Amino acid sequence: MKIIIVGASGTMGKYLAEAFKREHEIITAATKGCDVDVDITSTTSIENMYRKTGPFDALISTAGPTYVGPWKNLTDKTFRAGVEGKMMGQINLVLIGQHYINPKGSFTLITGALSHDPQKNFANASAANCAVEGFVRAAAIELENGIRINAVSPTVIENSPQYFPYFPGDIPVTMQQLEYGFRKAVFGANTGQVIKPY
Amino acid sequence: MKIIIVGASGTMGKYLAEAFKREHEIITAATKGCDVDVDITSTTSIENMYRKTGPFDALISTAGPTYVGPWKNLTDKTFRAGVEGKMMGQINLVLIGQHYINPKGSFTLITGALSHDPQKNFANASAANCAVEGFVRAAAIELENGIRINAVSPTVIENSPQYFPYFPGDIPVTMQQLEYGFRKAVFGANTGQVIKPY
Repeated sequence: MKIIIVGASGTMGKYLAEAFKREHEIITAATKGCDVDVDITSTTSIENMYRKTGPFDALISTAGPTYVGPWKNLTDKTFRAGVEGKMMGQINLVLIGQHYINPKGSFTLITGALSHDPQKNFANASAANCAVEGFVRAAAIELENGIRINAVSPTVIENSPQYFPYFPGDIPVTMQQLEYGFRKAVFGANTGQVIKPY
Repeated sequence: MKIIIVGASGTMGKYLAEAFKREHEIITAATKGCDVDVDITSTTSIENMYRKTGPFDALISTAGPTYVGPWKNLTDKTFRAGVEGKMMGQINLVLIGQHYINPKGSFTLITGALSHDPQKNFANASAANCAVEGFVRAAAIELENGIRINAVSPTVIENSPQYFPYFPGDIPVTMQQLEYGFRKAVFGANTGQVIKPY
């Protein structure tokens, strides 16, 4: 299977690329340092990425910039980090990628438990995660040629201890659990699902 | 109670203004034809609205522009209708309005069943609704001075029969049920809730 991993320079993306490369053709993508450069806040950049990769079987996104910080600094302007990044960035990966993906291919996007379980400082991510989850459910009934779409929604990740203080009492999701979530989305048959790998 | 109703020129807003005006001071707002003009896609316009209304006890929003139409026409550009309208428009009503609202005041936003129950042609609304619901849950743990925030999430409304064909098998929500949903949000004590008035 030919799999594109967007966000492959990050903790999650690297892990998934390593885990899947034994059995699949992996194309890594990120703003820099990967097989293909892509800035998901630019539709032109996304279009260019797909032109370079050509047809593919699965797109995994682990790319999710959002604004993290005190509520008092949350304005229309700071909110745009998540709107353009984790939300529209990922939605555009699908809206554009649907014209390049092979029949029966799949899109797997990243959301997170903040969508239903908010934490202070993360309102922007809560909104962006939820937007992506709503989009995933809706896109699943629209996409043709057997193309599937799902989201993987972890809590805080074990490899990101810098975030632990913001998620009191949340049991960190292990990298292996996360891998299982993406395996279920990419190699399973479901569509329109939000997979919680814990 | 001094209540601002944004979207008061529409079906829902008009009904709620009529229902609540016997017992409360109602200020109606919409792009035109109401007590105050407001374009919720403009932060300047929202700021101007609050400057005119002054301090208030409750903000009700029934304003939710989104793109409705065939999936094949859904692009980054058409998606912006819901991003700037129903999503950021309503989120900015809160981010800006929190500086004008009285202690123990409340914000009540409008979402809809499309967030969890998608229909063809409405992927933009699914994403926008979900974004607002995620924001509502997150804002509820951040807002201070006892300020509450909730969303009311109806299915298709009985007064909008033009939408019935798009929601096969959905039992329309009556205007009175809708009123009850908003009553629960505005006059109840809950916060961070998505109220389904059916």
